[in-house]
Amino acid sequence: MAIYATDTIIALSTPSGSGAIGVIRLSGNAAIDITNKVFSGKDLSQQSSHTIHFGLIKDGNTIIDEVLVSLFIAPKSYTKENIVEISCHGSPYIIQQIIQLLIKNGARAANPGEFTLRAFLNGQLDLSQAEAVADLIASTSQAAHKLAMQQMRGGFSSQLKVLRQQLIDFAALIELELDFSEEDVEFANREQLKSLIYELNGVLKKLIDSFELGNALKNGIPVVIAGKPNVGKSTLLNRLLNEERAIVSEIAGTTRDTIEDEITISGVNFRFVDTAGLRDTTDSIEAIGIARAYEKMQQAAIIIYLFDPAETPANMLTELVQELAPHNTPLLLVANKVDVYGVEKLQKEYAAFENLIGISAKNNHNLAALTQQLISVTHADKINSDELIISNSRHVEALNNTYTTLAQVLHLLQQPVSGELVAFELRQALYHLGLITGEISNDNLLESIFTRFCIGK
Amino acid sequence: MAIYATDTIIALSTPSGSGAIGVIRLSGNAAIDITNKVFSGKDLSQQSSHTIHFGLIKDGNTIIDEVLVSLFIAPKSYTKENIVEISCHGSPYIIQQIIQLLIKNGARAANPGEFTLRAFLNGQLDLSQAEAVADLIASTSQAAHKLAMQQMRGGFSSQLKVLRQQLIDFAALIELELDFSEEDVEFANREQLKSLIYELNGVLKKLIDSFELGNALKNGIPVVIAGKPNVGKSTLLNRLLNEERAIVSEIAGTTRDTIEDEITISGVNFRFVDTAGLRDTTDSIEAIGIARAYEKMQQAAIIIYLFDPAETPANMLTELVQELAPHNTPLLLVANKVDVYGVEKLQKEYAAFENLIGISAKNNHNLAALTQQLISVTHADKINSDELIISNSRHVEALNNTYTTLAQVLHLLQQPVSGELVAFELRQALYHLGLITGEISNDNLLESIFTRFCIGK
Repeated sequence: MAIYATDTIIALSTPSGSGAIGVIRLSGNAAIDITNKVFSGKDLSQQSSHTIHFGLIKDGNTIIDEVLVSLFIAPKSYTKENIVEISCHGSPYIIQQIIQLLIKNGARAANPGEFTLRAFLNGQLDLSQAEAVADLIASTSQAAHKLAMQQMRGGFSSQLKVLRQQLIDFAALIELELDFSEEDVEFANREQLKSLIYELNGVLKKLIDSFELGNALKNGIPVVIAGKPNVGKSTLLNRLLNEERAIVSEIAGTTRDTIEDEITISGVNFRFVDTAGLRDTTDSIEAIGIARAYEKMQQAAIIIYLFDPAETPANMLTELVQELAPHNTPLLLVANKVDVYGVEKLQKEYAAFENLIGISAKNNHNLAALTQQLISVTHADKINSDELIISNSRHVEALNNTYTTLAQVLHLLQQPVSGELVAFELRQALYHLGLITGEISNDNLLESIFTRFCIGK
Repeated sequence: MAIYATDTIIALSTPSGSGAIGVIRLSGNAAIDITNKVFSGKDLSQQSSHTIHFGLIKDGNTIIDEVLVSLFIAPKSYTKENIVEISCHGSPYIIQQIIQLLIKNGARAANPGEFTLRAFLNGQLDLSQAEAVADLIASTSQAAHKLAMQQMRGGFSSQLKVLRQQLIDFAALIELELDFSEEDVEFANREQLKSLIYELNGVLKKLIDSFELGNALKNGIPVVIAGKPNVGKSTLLNRLLNEERAIVSEIAGTTRDTIEDEITISGVNFRFVDTAGLRDTTDSIEAIGIARAYEKMQQAAIIIYLFDPAETPANMLTELVQELAPHNTPLLLVANKVDVYGVEKLQKEYAAFENLIGISAKNNHNLAALTQQLISVTHADKINSDELIISNSRHVEALNNTYTTLAQVLHLLQQPVSGELVAFELRQALYHLGLITGEISNDNLLESIFTRFCIGK
């Protein structure tokens, strides 16, 4: 990936697949001239910025499509380069033909995120804002949207910039001391520096701690539905998703592949995973499914353990729970088929289990209690405060490195060490902090960030 | 569906799913005013047609997104009404929020095809052109694209209009005779009418006959891969699709659901269907799969019968072929695993079978011969001539009705019947012909056409 290229890039900017329209985007000095070569309509090079023009895209005499072309003339565009957007009929075939034609005429297929990379390089956005663009696009829930919008509009960046500036001021004083090292002066008040670092690390710690929630809110909270064969796991999945996603039959072992799907509850995304029923089996394909079920449980944030109270008495349940619960993953015990077993009997027999929920997936009974408990277990309600929440693993890594380095500075300040060492560690801390918003960046970092974007943004 | 509504409609016009951008479209008198209420930027009501404006979409104080708004002022738009296009970040969540907000402010969720319906009602397109818009969007191959583009740009309409005008001229003369019926005059030369109808029906017949190919080219040609368990059907499917679409194992009965996917070969779309292996089984889920396999064969345009020559000698193959071939569906006999069996041995042992192809799906051997034969069996090369090809089942129905009615006119003209009867049948023929381009239409017809569109077009 040539990071600082200035050629003209092209990509489909709308989701792939059929739709009423598709939008193809070009960015670069030659964007307008290249489009002009295949556009039959007004001369695009003579038009103003922010105007729209109807015409045909033609490959020689073959009409590929009737289109609308939008012009954005540098620097009044997202990338601060010339941008052309071609709005065509939303057929994957047509879109592919137009893109190929424009590539033949001098454009280059854009890398993932290359439009936003250019926006960053040309000073339109800082790095964490650019990353938020990708998060904003990927946001599928109120929670994820709020996190991304806050970040894109600079809430997070501006807080970090204040922290970083304070640290730079101190570091500058210490570097100054080094210049005057023979005179043994202290421009930087050590006590003030310590208390600044305490304050900084307090803020950093809070941001770092917010990551677990932020990550879950952004990516969806993985919930595995586990249990013995035929307790109604697939029926529960279908109920939670409000659709017939999994094949349901009375035959134990019907589900072989793990089936996943997402649904938003109270603004939070949950990713439900239905698994093969846990049992000993001689069917080798089913056995693979059961192995996958255990794997999925390892990755889950929450496990719903579904059981049929008619077949799993309380003492057996105690054993099963002990066997299953890996690490500290919250385990929700859910008794299915209570319409048959009886609600009162359930309460009596399983009184020892706190928070056990009785449902009937088949009759859609008491599922609200289950979804409510899912929300409460995840602490997802925090999103409604105005607290900053970190949701990017790169950020949390940089914040962690900053935190550790600053803790090292504190440690050094307790001892009679030279200013050089303190200055070195402070520079390290500034480096890590600068990586987040892109004051510090390099090709590898940019590449790893922008290749995670969708193509066309 | 209120066909002649003039309120302001709204829909997502780009495919659903995540992408760099999504485009939401509003059409109607109030489109600009409604958008203005939630848009924070320039006053949209003061801007010119075909201009683009940056700003925020806000719900009260909550920022939903940063967007670009494009304006098309009536009648300079697709629907000839005011149109606003909002280009936002391509997150399904954001798109849904913006649409809900605009609905709250007075827009109505558009029905499928309602934008194009308005374009038709306001005289922008005739009916067959409007239908071609949907076909164009759905086109996924060169062949389908060419058919749709020809129709959208009016090639088919203009040929029909010429035919219809000639018929109208004759019908008018016959109606005239009726007015002078007491004078027993013949304004319409019966011989000329007959020869016109012969000519017309010749053209109609050709168009009707082109439908089988047109339909296959448009919708993809369904090819079923059938055969006994474990002959390599899923491996062949994966090879044809160039991906690991089906789970392959050495265990007979691995495939239960039928697995379908499309691929374009030489500009033509084929829809390959992998089926459960044909055998007697006691596994009830597998049995459902086998029943589905036979169903799919009934719907196939081509059946690939895959067999392992090591296990199916020539005489057994003869029997199987006779059992299988339903109706006249072309059957391609394909011997798999020839790397093991030997190419020369295959040619010798199965010399009686014309066009039998030997492949090795596993080693990707000789698949080109198979795909070549698929193209040749379908006559798909016809698409490269400039002949008009009908691909719409509504059109072929109307053409058939016209043809039959005109044949009835010919029949009447052989006999001493009154002008009234001939005039009646001619009016019927004109009615059927007029349905195609929409000179004749009614709410039911329009509804049935436009509900087949995607939403947002």
